[in-house]
Amino acid sequence: MKAALDCIHCFQRQALEAARMASDDLWLHEKITREVMGKLLAMDWDKRPTEISGIVHGIVKEISGNADPYKRVKKEYNDIALKMYLGLEKIVKNSQDPIQTAVRLAIAGNVIDFAVSSEFDLDGAIDSALARKFAIDDMPALKEELESGREILYIADNAGEIVFDRLLLETILSCYSPRKIKFVVKASPVVNDVTLDDARYVGIDKIPNLEFIEVGPGLERTSGKFKEIVENNLTISKGQGNYEALSEVETIFFLFMVKCMVVARDLEVGMGGIVLKRG
Amino acid sequence: MKAALDCIHCFQRQALEAARMASDDLWLHEKITREVMGKLLAMDWDKRPTEISGIVHGIVKEISGNADPYKRVKKEYNDIALKMYLGLEKIVKNSQDPIQTAVRLAIAGNVIDFAVSSEFDLDGAIDSALARKFAIDDMPALKEELESGREILYIADNAGEIVFDRLLLETILSCYSPRKIKFVVKASPVVNDVTLDDARYVGIDKIPNLEFIEVGPGLERTSGKFKEIVENNLTISKGQGNYEALSEVETIFFLFMVKCMVVARDLEVGMGGIVLKRG
Repeated sequence: MKAALDCIHCFQRQALEAARMASDDLWLHEKITREVMGKLLAMDWDKRPTEISGIVHGIVKEISGNADPYKRVKKEYNDIALKMYLGLEKIVKNSQDPIQTAVRLAIAGNVIDFAVSSEFDLDGAIDSALARKFAIDDMPALKEELESGREILYIADNAGEIVFDRLLLETILSCYSPRKIKFVVKASPVVNDVTLDDARYVGIDKIPNLEFIEVGPGLERTSGKFKEIVENNLTISKGQGNYEALSEVETIFFLFMVKCMVVARDLEVGMGGIVLKRG
Repeated sequence: MKAALDCIHCFQRQALEAARMASDDLWLHEKITREVMGKLLAMDWDKRPTEISGIVHGIVKEISGNADPYKRVKKEYNDIALKMYLGLEKIVKNSQDPIQTAVRLAIAGNVIDFAVSSEFDLDGAIDSALARKFAIDDMPALKEELESGREILYIADNAGEIVFDRLLLETILSCYSPRKIKFVVKASPVVNDVTLDDARYVGIDKIPNLEFIEVGPGLERTSGKFKEIVENNLTISKGQGNYEALSEVETIFFLFMVKCMVVARDLEVGMGGIVLKRG
């Protein structure tokens, strides 16, 4: 999907947030804000949000000299989620439909970034994700694909929620027999996205028959080569950002919570809706 | 108070909202967005939010050719509030402390703009404003000043909530004997701020011993002449915007609900806090 005009000011909000994480220097915050505005103004906006976002966060890193502004907060997300792991595992094991429950939890995990940055009620979000109707529900198609035993390509999203992804993958392994799992992470830090370090920190590497794929220079999410890998596997994509980047790939199962009006309008669902959508 | 960096992207969000109200032409929305960004970039930001906001909304009007983008929505606010008037009047009349109740309602009225633009629960906001503790409470000082019978200068805020202002002024007249009431409105349309037309539409002109003052070019809210009038009266100022413009005038009683993080930080209160603050 393409960026909307609403994205332009939202990128600036994100850049300021990142600038504040990267540095305490107020003068730098204004310098970054102005540089981002200048770059955005000089740019054609007929692009994917993720493409513009990459440029914006590149400016933050360059000017602040901090290559990983979200490092501290990512660890915080991971630690919060790790503390919840055993409780969540119990919920899945005791449920009538473990896959459905684990999918719902994986989507609920998508709100951890809200949870840390404000007084968000994470437990409430989990209860709600367990009880609520999906805004879009392609669960039957996902289960059918899982039955086939094809290799799974799992495109991770944020730190923290990968603990919930781990639980989903373990649940899939206990119910089905995929030939292999490829777990896609970012090759270098991008906002609060999962890197190899994060994945190992929460124990994704303990999952049997799993290998990592790092995307970044040479293997971008939107590149032809990456899309070829996506199309040749049963691909599960987490988070709104990956939907924005890959929405037109019809074979992908997108799992996310709708976090902004632009995506809500694109999908014709409400804000906060939980989505399991085949592309 | 001065604008924060957070205000810069927020002005752009407001400009886009106003552009969409002013015109359905998507090309114009982008033109306005870019023009606003260019103007902001070229500007020193060491200004009051209201000053920058005036420039931003001036661009929207100029480029769209629509001198009053909020005309339709202001009528909608006024009509919603007018329908509530009799019920609110009853709440005030039945209350132990009518002034306190009318002040609380006047602050609750400050959320009508949220109520119209989203699925905001206005009735819930009113119940909450009636029950909650003030984040800042200078009620004793306000009552003491009202006892003096001085002339009241009442600086109005948005359409819709003026119905609640009318109720507060009527309640003041039933409990105290101010020599006169001067009701301050905008001389020309500024976002959803109250103009003379709005004030008459909801019956403010029926309040005995009341005269209108129109502020605009020549008598800006922040001008020396206006501040002189403010200081020579018992001044009640509604809404966050007027606080941003006049926060350092110590004699003013500010009544508002805290709607953004910049003001929340400035006052060291939480978002959504209800404030009755002597400047």
